[in-house]
Amino acid sequence: MAYLERYFAPAKDQLQQLLKRNIQTAQTVSQQVSDVLLNVKEKGDAALYQYAKQFDGVELEALAVSEREKLQADELVSQSLKDALSVAFANIHAFHSAELPKGEHLTVAEGIELSRKIVPISRVGLYIPGGTAPLFSTVLMLAIPAMVARCPEVVLCTPPNKEGKVHPAILYAAKLCNVTEIYKVGGSQAIGAMAYGTESIKRVDKIFGPGNQYVMEAKIQVNSSCCAIDMPAGPSEVMVVARTSSNPAYVASDLLSQAEHGRDSQAMLVVLAEKEEGFAFLDKVEAALSEQLSVLGRQQLLESSLAGSRSFVVPSFDACVEVVNAYAPEHLIIDLEDVGNEKMVAQVVNAGSVFVGPYSCESAGDYASGTNHTLPTNGWARSYSGVSTDSYLKKITVQKLSKKGLTDLAPTLMRMAEDEQLMAHRNAVAVRLEV
Amino acid sequence: MAYLERYFAPAKDQLQQLLKRNIQTAQTVSQQVSDVLLNVKEKGDAALYQYAKQFDGVELEALAVSEREKLQADELVSQSLKDALSVAFANIHAFHSAELPKGEHLTVAEGIELSRKIVPISRVGLYIPGGTAPLFSTVLMLAIPAMVARCPEVVLCTPPNKEGKVHPAILYAAKLCNVTEIYKVGGSQAIGAMAYGTESIKRVDKIFGPGNQYVMEAKIQVNSSCCAIDMPAGPSEVMVVARTSSNPAYVASDLLSQAEHGRDSQAMLVVLAEKEEGFAFLDKVEAALSEQLSVLGRQQLLESSLAGSRSFVVPSFDACVEVVNAYAPEHLIIDLEDVGNEKMVAQVVNAGSVFVGPYSCESAGDYASGTNHTLPTNGWARSYSGVSTDSYLKKITVQKLSKKGLTDLAPTLMRMAEDEQLMAHRNAVAVRLEV
Repeated sequence: MAYLERYFAPAKDQLQQLLKRNIQTAQTVSQQVSDVLLNVKEKGDAALYQYAKQFDGVELEALAVSEREKLQADELVSQSLKDALSVAFANIHAFHSAELPKGEHLTVAEGIELSRKIVPISRVGLYIPGGTAPLFSTVLMLAIPAMVARCPEVVLCTPPNKEGKVHPAILYAAKLCNVTEIYKVGGSQAIGAMAYGTESIKRVDKIFGPGNQYVMEAKIQVNSSCCAIDMPAGPSEVMVVARTSSNPAYVASDLLSQAEHGRDSQAMLVVLAEKEEGFAFLDKVEAALSEQLSVLGRQQLLESSLAGSRSFVVPSFDACVEVVNAYAPEHLIIDLEDVGNEKMVAQVVNAGSVFVGPYSCESAGDYASGTNHTLPTNGWARSYSGVSTDSYLKKITVQKLSKKGLTDLAPTLMRMAEDEQLMAHRNAVAVRLEV
Repeated sequence: MAYLERYFAPAKDQLQQLLKRNIQTAQTVSQQVSDVLLNVKEKGDAALYQYAKQFDGVELEALAVSEREKLQADELVSQSLKDALSVAFANIHAFHSAELPKGEHLTVAEGIELSRKIVPISRVGLYIPGGTAPLFSTVLMLAIPAMVARCPEVVLCTPPNKEGKVHPAILYAAKLCNVTEIYKVGGSQAIGAMAYGTESIKRVDKIFGPGNQYVMEAKIQVNSSCCAIDMPAGPSEVMVVARTSSNPAYVASDLLSQAEHGRDSQAMLVVLAEKEEGFAFLDKVEAALSEQLSVLGRQQLLESSLAGSRSFVVPSFDACVEVVNAYAPEHLIIDLEDVGNEKMVAQVVNAGSVFVGPYSCESAGDYASGTNHTLPTNGWARSYSGVSTDSYLKKITVQKLSKKGLTDLAPTLMRMAEDEQLMAHRNAVAVRLEV
């Protein structure tokens, strides 16, 4: 049995079908979420306590994580994880510092000074999903750029476990990033609390972070009324572009690490080759998948995730580029050796993050190389960038005109205002120059 | 009779009430818009022709503006407007070129190369509203940054008049910016056409531009499913910060030029002064308003817009800053002379664009100083920036690890993957290093 469906040089129409994401939108989600949001808006903290009981199965004594819990967390995290987090922190901090923009200043004409002032967003909210494993890596990815951007207030929401606790690794990662305001609130109710504010949680200006379909729907709903969000998001995905000389075990491992994210995540493989040799390479990838699956846990989950995955053998470089840009993958791994890699990077226009060469596995970027792992999915890479330091900043334009600057520009301004029939706009110029 | 309600040093709670925008959301708009969008999605061009008849009162022969119409436009635009547009073009182009980011490259550790590649969005759609006056200035503001960003495809939609024509000044401005693909489609149907694509109009990746509440609602709806937008938007607004030594005629002219945008736009005045002298200054502003209103047309519209406006006399500099940041104005005009201006600019964190000093009227930035006039309204300046060259670009992270780079990072990656219980992520590292 083959894990991946195979296609050779699909025509454009067929390709479009094959590259579709496999997203199931439940009609009921939207209504359920808007009920939760309304309830949080109206009842505030009371609604949050009620949902903790209902959804997390715990009666909380307080929403905020206490100082005591934070101190305990320090002791519960292993030294080896602390060491790992500090390496990850250093790399992520270094790259996000390099991303920091400086602003511009331009004298566009005598007496017309223009600039852009870079300002951090005053209060940002980070959402970290719950579940069996603690996503401390996402804490770093969302909190470090907030730190680099110097956002004055950063709040973190994450669901409590059945004991009403937050995983110590999450608390430790938050501490590394100077995030001190942490609430035990999960799901769409957390998004509502951060967007509207409650008695305990002051509303934020922008919400960041991944989540299930309820969280995502809540982010979209608050974004349309009152609160900015990082980006819309869907299930995670990877596209691997390889040659027949690539290592099939590496390719298999990348597909599997994507499949591990959940049943709805998608792993796509593109092989630059003629049909016969391409299919022979796919056989080797299948064998490697089989071998690796047998030693990894969660075989059933991984196999079922791979069911949504596909492989394409494509005979020309240009066709490869076309497949990549048409799919607009969240993660793009390119292993075309030597010449091919850089040429491909140059031609890719739709992707969240690109991993180049045999040693650039997605896990590196997911955790610790320094790039951000919060990236546009579901084709949004056509128009969105991943989270970066920019995502935590605003750019405010500032202009200063002298009397000479305005006088010189006045004929232009008054002509345009008049032709747009905005006479009060014209007047604001005229009154200053007494013309 | 006073045009502006007056308040002295309002308390925080009262201030919040007084700074509320005066937005009326019609419950029916959302359903009407989603019907239009669905219709465009299903029927394509046929729906667009039908809506042109229904909403614009014209039976179009073609959706695309013909070459002939474009040539005719050249002849119909006055030389003085052409001259004005070319001054505006040069300033806007210069400032938006200064905004162009360069991307970064960082060797974060030996064998770990990180970079960001700057890529224009492939296909952008610009919406220019119709109405009595042609908004050619908005064509420049939306099309020049697309040009600077080198977006390969730029499409413009604007409603036709009753003769089925587009105003020549719009066509001329589009030509200046190399925008050649122009369609006679307006309203929410234009947003649907650009988001989903029809037989004539290929779908775009991101939609820019202002519009009435139907257009805005359509942008929000498509943004939640398939197409990025520049930003949510509401009615335009200004906040003027003055001292008693400011020129009351200038202040009045700025308030009026804002009021001119429509009944729902808001003009706010903050005067840094003690109560008595502040109110005396307000009297002078009222007198200037009265005088200017009597010579400007549209007295009724202007007076009714001013009804939503307010003035605050605030005795301390810090309280002034607080009022500004709490309101988060789209346009902020500061005339505090000498020391006060720069100090205020430094402390403003929530604003779309700032105009500094007595000669920096909003009209300058609206038309031709070089900054963009598409700015966050309705308090969105808390989290959004105005349109800039950035808005037309994506930033794709790229990483390249050597064997040494991955080997050194491996303990960190494997520790983190294991503790997040993502064993396939760990495996993707291990398999490459045979550990």
